[in-house]
Amino acid sequence: MAKSNAFYAQSGGVTAVINASACGVIETARKHRSRIGKVLAGRNGILGALSEDLIDTSLESPAAIRALRHTPAGAFGSARYKLGRLEDNQAQYQRLIDVFRAHDIGYFFYNGGGDSADTCLKVSQLSTALGYPLQAIHVPKTVDNDLPVTDCCPGFGSVAKYVATSIREAGFDVASMARTSTKVFVLEVMGRHAGWITAACGLAAERAGDAPHILLFPEVAFDPARFLARVDETVKRTGYCVIAVSEGVRDADGRFLSESGLRDAFGHAQLGGVAPVIANLIREKLGLKYHWAVADYLQRAARHIASKTDVAQAYAVGKAAVELALAGHNAVMPTIVRDSTRPYRWSIGFTDLDRVANVEKKMPANFITADGFHITTRCRNYLAPLIEGEDYPPFRNGLPDYVRLKNPSVRKKLKTPFKI
Amino acid sequence: MAKSNAFYAQSGGVTAVINASACGVIETARKHRSRIGKVLAGRNGILGALSEDLIDTSLESPAAIRALRHTPAGAFGSARYKLGRLEDNQAQYQRLIDVFRAHDIGYFFYNGGGDSADTCLKVSQLSTALGYPLQAIHVPKTVDNDLPVTDCCPGFGSVAKYVATSIREAGFDVASMARTSTKVFVLEVMGRHAGWITAACGLAAERAGDAPHILLFPEVAFDPARFLARVDETVKRTGYCVIAVSEGVRDADGRFLSESGLRDAFGHAQLGGVAPVIANLIREKLGLKYHWAVADYLQRAARHIASKTDVAQAYAVGKAAVELALAGHNAVMPTIVRDSTRPYRWSIGFTDLDRVANVEKKMPANFITADGFHITTRCRNYLAPLIEGEDYPPFRNGLPDYVRLKNPSVRKKLKTPFKI
Repeated sequence: MAKSNAFYAQSGGVTAVINASACGVIETARKHRSRIGKVLAGRNGILGALSEDLIDTSLESPAAIRALRHTPAGAFGSARYKLGRLEDNQAQYQRLIDVFRAHDIGYFFYNGGGDSADTCLKVSQLSTALGYPLQAIHVPKTVDNDLPVTDCCPGFGSVAKYVATSIREAGFDVASMARTSTKVFVLEVMGRHAGWITAACGLAAERAGDAPHILLFPEVAFDPARFLARVDETVKRTGYCVIAVSEGVRDADGRFLSESGLRDAFGHAQLGGVAPVIANLIREKLGLKYHWAVADYLQRAARHIASKTDVAQAYAVGKAAVELALAGHNAVMPTIVRDSTRPYRWSIGFTDLDRVANVEKKMPANFITADGFHITTRCRNYLAPLIEGEDYPPFRNGLPDYVRLKNPSVRKKLKTPFKI
Repeated sequence: MAKSNAFYAQSGGVTAVINASACGVIETARKHRSRIGKVLAGRNGILGALSEDLIDTSLESPAAIRALRHTPAGAFGSARYKLGRLEDNQAQYQRLIDVFRAHDIGYFFYNGGGDSADTCLKVSQLSTALGYPLQAIHVPKTVDNDLPVTDCCPGFGSVAKYVATSIREAGFDVASMARTSTKVFVLEVMGRHAGWITAACGLAAERAGDAPHILLFPEVAFDPARFLARVDETVKRTGYCVIAVSEGVRDADGRFLSESGLRDAFGHAQLGGVAPVIANLIREKLGLKYHWAVADYLQRAARHIASKTDVAQAYAVGKAAVELALAGHNAVMPTIVRDSTRPYRWSIGFTDLDRVANVEKKMPANFITADGFHITTRCRNYLAPLIEGEDYPPFRNGLPDYVRLKNPSVRKKLKTPFKI
């Protein structure tokens, strides 16, 4: 078979392990030099393809590529940029094909969430329509854990481990201070539409009375009176109360409890700051001393406390993407298959992209307790294996030693610039 | 020499390693059973002594006591409670002596910061005045790193490691998103009066252009125009800007920025949270997309990323406190002595409590760069050894396996309750 280059790009919000997927893609491609020439990465995701701003990863040492496995965030730059509908944006898609043709790219590996799966599918369809041979493989990634078909999403397990660890530690802190000081602690975590990350906080509560005591999910309309009654009851019973709240919690009218009014490139509201809203409510109505924290990017960048399971799965989907391409597949996504929960065993499968693109996996209703304030045993059984194992990065000077690639540019071949 | 019991209590805000000091005290006392009977701990700090609510630590297994070394927060409960002036609060001090006498306590180990050192000194003076033989030893602890004489304070090194690690990770995240999304990230850290923790964030910036780019210290009056100009310049040069801000930053009039009137979605003023104030300022004046995080208790409870140096020093001051007592010392505090910076070598010394009580160590002016926005090499040299080494706790089910002691109560011997 003919040899051609591969294109790889990172899309959307980055994670602690998306570079582990990049590592899997590049290391596996390097093992198949007879079929895959260079892996060219898009600088800042798909923008790099549109603007012909490509990175030649073949100039990175094996050690540098290996270090991607323990380095958080997007080593080539990611982008929040959604290609529009094919009918309205033909020029953009045509441009992608032009760039791919100019650089002899026969493989398109796109590492992202649901929106990116849709882009990947469209690129595949267009290449077929235009008669340009291209195999488009989507590499799953999202801290939101909301991709369908796959049992879980690379990136989620590490956020889950971080938030569960952090809220356990904060719980120990508040427990020791509660007699004379802070009685309520609120931790805000990510999750616009689905409560997966909030649910993961619940893993820290292994025994009766353990923190966190209350989880506020985006799936459950916030009822101030019921919530305050539960806080009050918890403080009276346990001496303190630890709460995890999703950034996406809404009131009965569907309004986000805290909305700044800003929107991101996908039209999503930029959230942040529901923890102080909850904390203020508690102060006003119950008069309890509180502290609050907002984890924000710390949670999805926390490679230092990544889940070993998550790192292994992120690497595996990158590796599988290349292997699927070499086996002749197109418009597919490798998936994580749960073969067994106890003991936890997983393997890699794959699915057609049209089953993934723009489909959002919701948290099952039976993962939330009837009172709406915690996770069920079923949820715990699902989540527990995903945070198993530690995979510490190397440290230097007391700090994680993360790699910064050289990221050299490929010389442009097209005469025409492209306006994004 | 006569054998008597020891009293141990934790005071003020807890840390990731205060239990390592408790471990040092208890394990060392157990090695000297001919001189020290039981170690009785105050439940919720000094309140436990006043209310005769004592915990019999002799009933805990060696394994449980050993596990304190890797467990954050205060295992016996801490208290924010300051005994007043001796002249005005004679009854309180008399009560302490009554409780100590009733339980045959000859050693008083008090684990806290500057206020607690003062209490410890007063207890020692009173015991002398009342002719009750008691050796009072203060065990240093504070994330604020503001105790005098000692080179550093147990608890600080682990917060320093956590914030420097976290801001490095968030910096990698923002760097990958900056092209199309977030350009500014703000992390709020502790330090009401001194910028030690903010300074520690600066350790993550090892090379030109590294995050964090701007540090906002409580020692430097906040100048919005100069700050915004620096943010703008950094984004233009580097593509993004990462900022660490101390909770204690004030404006030119000395007002805390956190009290400057940010409002939540309900129009309520938000208490606390200087990070959103800074972030909003940037959005309003520069129109840049931002994210912000508030680490709050996560930073001081983060035993999972504790500094090995800090853990060793916390244990060592606990051990030394007992050894100082056995050597006949009274009204002293073990200190950490820096014997050499490169290579870092430290040993344990001690100092009289009257040199410590109510003295606050400020950050030297030459630790902050002339522009007020970063740390100097001198500061870096001081801080770097304190975050050296990792000392991971054991994990179970994917989470740190922290110990909860049984904390059995000692039977009360006094007939009279004491109103606190």
